[in-house]
Amino acid sequence: MNFPLKQVHDETTRWNLASVVSALRDSRERAHRVRHMGHVRELPYREVIADVMQGLSAALFPTHYGRPDLNDENIDFFVGHTLADTLDKLADQVRRALLFSRSTELPHPEDLQEQAHRIVRALAEDLPTIRGLLYSDLQAAWQGDPAATGVSELLLCYPGITAVIHHRIAHALFKLGAPMVARLIADIAHARTGIDIHPGAQIGEGFFIDHGTGVVIGETCVIGRNVRLYQAVTLGAKRFPTDDNGHLIKGQPRHPIVEDDVVIYAGATVLGRITIGRGSTIGGNVWLTHSVPAGSNVTQALSQHS
Amino acid sequence: MNFPLKQVHDETTRWNLASVVSALRDSRERAHRVRHMGHVRELPYREVIADVMQGLSAALFPTHYGRPDLNDENIDFFVGHTLADTLDKLADQVRRALLFSRSTELPHPEDLQEQAHRIVRALAEDLPTIRGLLYSDLQAAWQGDPAATGVSELLLCYPGITAVIHHRIAHALFKLGAPMVARLIADIAHARTGIDIHPGAQIGEGFFIDHGTGVVIGETCVIGRNVRLYQAVTLGAKRFPTDDNGHLIKGQPRHPIVEDDVVIYAGATVLGRITIGRGSTIGGNVWLTHSVPAGSNVTQALSQHS
Amino acid sequence: MNFPLKQVHDETTRWNLASVVSALRDSRERAHRVRHMGHVRELPYREVIADVMQGLSAALFPTHYGRPDLNDENIDFFVGHTLADTLDKLADQVRRALLFSRSTELPHPEDLQEQAHRIVRALAEDLPTIRGLLYSDLQAAWQGDPAATGVSELLLCYPGITAVIHHRIAHALFKLGAPMVARLIADIAHARTGIDIHPGAQIGEGFFIDHGTGVVIGETCVIGRNVRLYQAVTLGAKRFPTDDNGHLIKGQPRHPIVEDDVVIYAGATVLGRITIGRGSTIGGNVWLTHSVPAGSNVTQALSQHS
Amino acid sequence: MNFPLKQVHDETTRWNLASVVSALRDSRERAHRVRHMGHVRELPYREVIADVMQGLSAALFPTHYGRPDLNDENIDFFVGHTLADTLDKLADQVRRALLFSRSTELPHPEDLQEQAHRIVRALAEDLPTIRGLLYSDLQAAWQGDPAATGVSELLLCYPGITAVIHHRIAHALFKLGAPMVARLIADIAHARTGIDIHPGAQIGEGFFIDHGTGVVIGETCVIGRNVRLYQAVTLGAKRFPTDDNGHLIKGQPRHPIVEDDVVIYAGATVLGRITIGRGSTIGGNVWLTHSVPAGSNVTQALSQHS
Amino acid sequence: MNFPLKQVHDETTRWNLASVVSALRDSRERAHRVRHMGHVRELPYREVIADVMQGLSAALFPTHYGRPDLNDENIDFFVGHTLADTLDKLADQVRRALLFSRSTELPHPEDLQEQAHRIVRALAEDLPTIRGLLYSDLQAAWQGDPAATGVSELLLCYPGITAVIHHRIAHALFKLGAPMVARLIADIAHARTGIDIHPGAQIGEGFFIDHGTGVVIGETCVIGRNVRLYQAVTLGAKRFPTDDNGHLIKGQPRHPIVEDDVVIYAGATVLGRITIGRGSTIGGNVWLTHSVPAGSNVTQALSQHS
Amino acid sequence: MNFPLKQVHDETTRWNLASVVSALRDSRERAHRVRHMGHVRELPYREVIADVMQGLSAALFPTHYGRPDLNDENIDFFVGHTLADTLDKLADQVRRALLFSRSTELPHPEDLQEQAHRIVRALAEDLPTIRGLLYSDLQAAWQGDPAATGVSELLLCYPGITAVIHHRIAHALFKLGAPMVARLIADIAHARTGIDIHPGAQIGEGFFIDHGTGVVIGETCVIGRNVRLYQAVTLGAKRFPTDDNGHLIKGQPRHPIVEDDVVIYAGATVLGRITIGRGSTIGGNVWLTHSVPAGSNVTQALSQHS
Repeated sequence: MNFPLKQVHDETTRWNLASVVSALRDSRERAHRVRHMGHVRELPYREVIADVMQGLSAALFPTHYGRPDLNDENIDFFVGHTLADTLDKLADQVRRALLFSRSTELPHPEDLQEQAHRIVRALAEDLPTIRGLLYSDLQAAWQGDPAATGVSELLLCYPGITAVIHHRIAHALFKLGAPMVARLIADIAHARTGIDIHPGAQIGEGFFIDHGTGVVIGETCVIGRNVRLYQAVTLGAKRFPTDDNGHLIKGQPRHPIVEDDVVIYAGATVLGRITIGRGSTIGGNVWLTHSVPAGSNVTQALSQHS
Repeated sequence: MNFPLKQVHDETTRWNLASVVSALRDSRERAHRVRHMGHVRELPYREVIADVMQGLSAALFPTHYGRPDLNDENIDFFVGHTLADTLDKLADQVRRALLFSRSTELPHPEDLQEQAHRIVRALAEDLPTIRGLLYSDLQAAWQGDPAATGVSELLLCYPGITAVIHHRIAHALFKLGAPMVARLIADIAHARTGIDIHPGAQIGEGFFIDHGTGVVIGETCVIGRNVRLYQAVTLGAKRFPTDDNGHLIKGQPRHPIVEDDVVIYAGATVLGRITIGRGSTIGGNVWLTHSVPAGSNVTQALSQHS
Repeated sequence: MNFPLKQVHDETTRWNLASVVSALRDSRERAHRVRHMGHVRELPYREVIADVMQGLSAALFPTHYGRPDLNDENIDFFVGHTLADTLDKLADQVRRALLFSRSTELPHPEDLQEQAHRIVRALAEDLPTIRGLLYSDLQAAWQGDPAATGVSELLLCYPGITAVIHHRIAHALFKLGAPMVARLIADIAHARTGIDIHPGAQIGEGFFIDHGTGVVIGETCVIGRNVRLYQAVTLGAKRFPTDDNGHLIKGQPRHPIVEDDVVIYAGATVLGRITIGRGSTIGGNVWLTHSVPAGSNVTQALSQHS
Repeated sequence: MNFPLKQVHDETTRWNLASVVSALRDSRERAHRVRHMGHVRELPYREVIADVMQGLSAALFPTHYGRPDLNDENIDFFVGHTLADTLDKLADQVRRALLFSRSTELPHPEDLQEQAHRIVRALAEDLPTIRGLLYSDLQAAWQGDPAATGVSELLLCYPGITAVIHHRIAHALFKLGAPMVARLIADIAHARTGIDIHPGAQIGEGFFIDHGTGVVIGETCVIGRNVRLYQAVTLGAKRFPTDDNGHLIKGQPRHPIVEDDVVIYAGATVLGRITIGRGSTIGGNVWLTHSVPAGSNVTQALSQHS
Repeated sequence: MNFPLKQVHDETTRWNLASVVSALRDSRERAHRVRHMGHVRELPYREVIADVMQGLSAALFPTHYGRPDLNDENIDFFVGHTLADTLDKLADQVRRALLFSRSTELPHPEDLQEQAHRIVRALAEDLPTIRGLLYSDLQAAWQGDPAATGVSELLLCYPGITAVIHHRIAHALFKLGAPMVARLIADIAHARTGIDIHPGAQIGEGFFIDHGTGVVIGETCVIGRNVRLYQAVTLGAKRFPTDDNGHLIKGQPRHPIVEDDVVIYAGATVLGRITIGRGSTIGGNVWLTHSVPAGSNVTQALSQHS
Repeated sequence: MNFPLKQVHDETTRWNLASVVSALRDSRERAHRVRHMGHVRELPYREVIADVMQGLSAALFPTHYGRPDLNDENIDFFVGHTLADTLDKLADQVRRALLFSRSTELPHPEDLQEQAHRIVRALAEDLPTIRGLLYSDLQAAWQGDPAATGVSELLLCYPGITAVIHHRIAHALFKLGAPMVARLIADIAHARTGIDIHPGAQIGEGFFIDHGTGVVIGETCVIGRNVRLYQAVTLGAKRFPTDDNGHLIKGQPRHPIVEDDVVIYAGATVLGRITIGRGSTIGGNVWLTHSVPAGSNVTQALSQHS
């Protein structure tokens, strides 16, 4: 910190740029160990995927997420133009991400593009079905929250709705073979809502999360119809399965199954491949690591005061 | 997924756009059931309301949220210009939202505009009072956090301050009859801070939330003066009141009353229309569903180790 | 609220601007009590510091946070140009913030600038070391999460990685004497990830936070190597030390020491200047306010069902 | 100019803002003499009209002025969406401008809006015809310039094409009763190309201006088919007709009639209500104030050298 | 040009960047010959000066160049805020430019800033007078053009008005000692209108240029009141005065004096320090290099046709 | 125009969008006659090429067109980063344009990309030479204009300098085989300066155009060293050469040769493949269609007054 005064006025070496740049290059090269040999791997781009989600949301709910002044004459032009633009962008991002989702040899560029087109075309075909699911989620939210005043309020103000829109699209892409883009979509929703749903999680119709901050739903969760969660609920893994050598086994079912019509209150922690039977209620802050039968009502009551 | 290779090069039907657009229109029409009969309902616009909050924050604390180089000669021009611009925008958003806050017949456009002007004019008159309340909140934060180094740090770095600025404006609009805009403001704060305060909640002066992620404060809460909360505190409803037919009764008092000088530590859950007496302390992770008298000190102590 | 109809058309006094602006000026002057006597204190600017973090992240991981199409020919130009731009901006923000970090007399402008340059130059020299630490964090994340598929996914999708990048730079600035800029960086990360790490916290290599929403790590925490945390973990203060007059004593060690190879599961609350011994495991939702020896395994088991 | 040094540091009166603002208000009030009595006249907005021209150009030539990657599947969605957006904007600008195009009493707002809608709807119906005319202009350019390499070069690089696209739309709006918007469109073209065509000028198909800088075409010009002009040609008024009291008589024919198949070379000046007969050629720098019969070839030869 | 195919895929040397950058550095250093020895001369910035002109135009004519929806309640806040912002920016640009307007020794930074403040403060005081002059120019335009329909059309659509607004501000700055900023303003107007007026030219009230493309007005011109010019008029120098050694003598009067009430038609060229007497008319395309008395009517008549 | 009132409120058919879109599609298809059969021809994009020119100008003169605060430490990083970015963009535009510069069969995409890379790489190698030429142009401007005060003023305020920078790059691209991009660059300069130089024109070192509006320089011009032009000079073709069938013959020499040290004053028109001998002076407004020997002094004197 004994920095001589004259250096401040010597603009030619203000930040020692050349040496910092060189040290950072060394650090990169040490870390990567293997050079890319001149190949550039174009990465997917979080900002573009956020745009894609904006575009898909607008295509699904044009007046709420697109432009508030659409009318019967122009709405289909808007939807068609938005989709054309958005699907092209998404296909390019999926193509980039495909390079990262396989461990083995490098695929041929044209194959990647064809595969990306196939995935996005299948997603486009799914969109009306996804819209139907989201409509069931809106109905569930309307029935589940006494403070809600209408569908527009739900679409504009409820983080749980934002999260489920992102999840249903992320899950479709996950199943179609674009897991990295799906993960980016999930994390965009997480950053905006505090709700962290792995795109692998399977979730039935009529799903509603109220408040939502701190909710975590793991990759292999299976959630039935008309399930309602509150803030800070965890549906997690109890422990990670390992093989005989102690290495993590990836992809094994390790998160809960939640059957239809279950309600889980704020702060409850549900861990492991257990089953919450249909119609059960799990109370706030409950810690649950074993299955419960249909119609269970699990609570805790533990405060003392002096 | 058996997609023929040549399709990739047939640009004329890359995404089956026409059929997807048509299926989405069908989905919209099924869902809405009733057509709007040519009427366009202009929706409020989240981005514009975020701009409005930026403008109002700048009018209240010009050097911190407006421009850091203001001086005595230009500050009132800045405040006046910012307010003029912001209040016009807000009035337009309030007008749009008024259509959504009443279930019965469609009001006349001019009446809506007049009502929106009345609401925004009343908010403008309230701004100096709101600024006074926020100043008391800043003082409370300064006294409540040993890490704080000054008012500027509080305004620039504390999510609890961001949340309370949004809440005090949202609450004023909620009381003046603009609940949907109020909800949007609350959700903007929630997305940015992880703190979820319903705009209906009544909160006295000198309010401070530290860290804040996961805090939830319900619609009918009544919070006294000089109350301090930490992260993940819930002031929620125990159950929702229903009428004889099992329908939710909206607007009933169902959240806690927190009297003056109460401190509630991280993760505590306080549920139902109970009263936390003046000067009480509620410990971390406590689960509380009954009233406690003034001066109570509620804790739990439950960890075991092996 | 008895607002005559004709006023709506009288544009000349739509918002009573002049009187609102005047009342806000009165409110500012009452609050500040002491006028600045014509001096302008330029404040640091949150948006610029967010840009700085974007620039430093791009300099550290150019292809992930900079531009996805960089190659060996242009990458050093990109890094050098980005650093030059970013460090100039940061130096200006540090200079502004220095005014706010000392309670006594006003320093001379040139001294402030020299000090800011010294701080930023030292940070620049630290960047390769910081990159090395972050690389160890990436390795820890890879080993800690069975769902992770590669370094790119970690850098693009994991809030825990975002948080640790921000923290390591914030901590360096905190130690170099720029605490307010450090706090702004920490709060930018908090808003984006829900993870709230005070820039004073000392954290060893190989640190990983999974999911992360609701994590709080206090100013005087000392965390060893290869520590792993899950969402909603609090490493906080039990109570604030006060002097004989009851005033808060700032800067005293009051947060936990977490030794190497500790894992703390979701929702655990660890409070006070206690020590978690090397290799311990703290279970989910545990409430811990006393030290535990190395190799401890602390759990709770408290759910009942009916 | 005897400005005391200390004032430089006295930020409170750096620019004497209050007195300058007040003097400018006085200047405005003196100039307008009559106050608007609280009425706001929304003016048309040059930037918005430039956007409108961008949108109409894109609707007419989607791949050249819209997006270069359009294909058969998405092009109609693009055109429809662009038109919907652009025509709404244009209608609002026309409505604003209508207030300025009549000297007498103030029309009712709803009448203005209805009139604006009628004008824009008629323009929309004209667009295919306008496109046909522009296609004839492109063919004329292709035949007239030995340097041209194709339609794309003409659309992207020729100021004469830019000017004629603007003129044909401006002229349609001029005839439909929106002269002020027409004038704004003409001046936008003038600023970009140096070609100044009054929107009242009538111009037949197959019109081409090469280079173009300095061309001026007056309001009452009548130009036939397949006319070609070069830079700095003026088709102007010789003198302005006045009534018995010496007041200008507006709208009288006072500019040339140019019949079919005429070529006018660079710098020629043609003034007054004269007729250039079909198939004539007017040489460079010629000064012409009388009619010439069909097939004329007017030149000058006047350089001397020493 | 014998470029081997494989190079296209060798991304590491796509553009030979390192050698091009190095050659450009050599070229810079050869050209400058003398190094700046570490000093940075901040240059004025054309884009910022264009913003400044936008701001000053908005302060002078708020509803036309500022925002079309201003009313009596908010207009002074708008003007004051716009001026505060604009004058600060202008002062910084003037300070930068002052370094370039003197050939001798480097002034002290604080002196430059003080001088820049003095210049801008004087300009601010001049603004109401400048507005008065511009109002006389608007009246002249209204009287001079039979096609004009009102002041709004003149302000929004006439390049001659744009040019004179820029000139009157540029001329004030030129006289106050900021010639380089004045030149930048003049060139911004030139690029937008095709009218090239040197900021040194003195121009009386009631000045109007119609169409304007190609007009050139030299540095030492003196133009009286109510003068009207058309497109492509040159008021230039006949030859440049040189000293005994043949070096250009700068600043000598070398451009015409045009007395009150003169009209000069399109394409006329007037060269040298001659005087056009009061009330004269100079015809189109006239070439004039000697003085003419008051009331002259200069024409040419030179076309022949065959 | 007989538009029923109720239609104004019938939003469903406000603009008859469907029928307008359909008519425009018919118009496109009639005009193109031949469908593209699903192929998309990506067009070059004027806005991107304007960015490219901004980038190349910044690489050539970093402190004037790049960023005014560059210093010795960061300038090469800036230049290298700017070039890397700009050359990539340019290569993509050149690739797109190559499709349009050949009349025969469609080339293979990879060949186009390789050709584009080769062209841009060659341009990059030329940049230092181009900078040297531009430096000679700056010196010529300095010597030719008594009003110029320094190199910075020339670079920032002189349209003639803007034009020659664009021309020298456009000419290099023209010669390297990218004529359409070259034409776009030329037209961008034309729109900004009013100076229209065909990219094919060959121009020696030390070239200066003063004022410049209306200058036109044709494709096959050959201009020597140290030539100076003023505004509105035309170096054009007298007539277009045709073959026996009357078709235009493209690419024939048809514009003047201007030898070293020639000055051509404002408004002069020089037409045809003639030669202006070394050291000649051509007076203002002269009309010249035959060669003149070295040292000629061509004038006209033709004004009369009454």
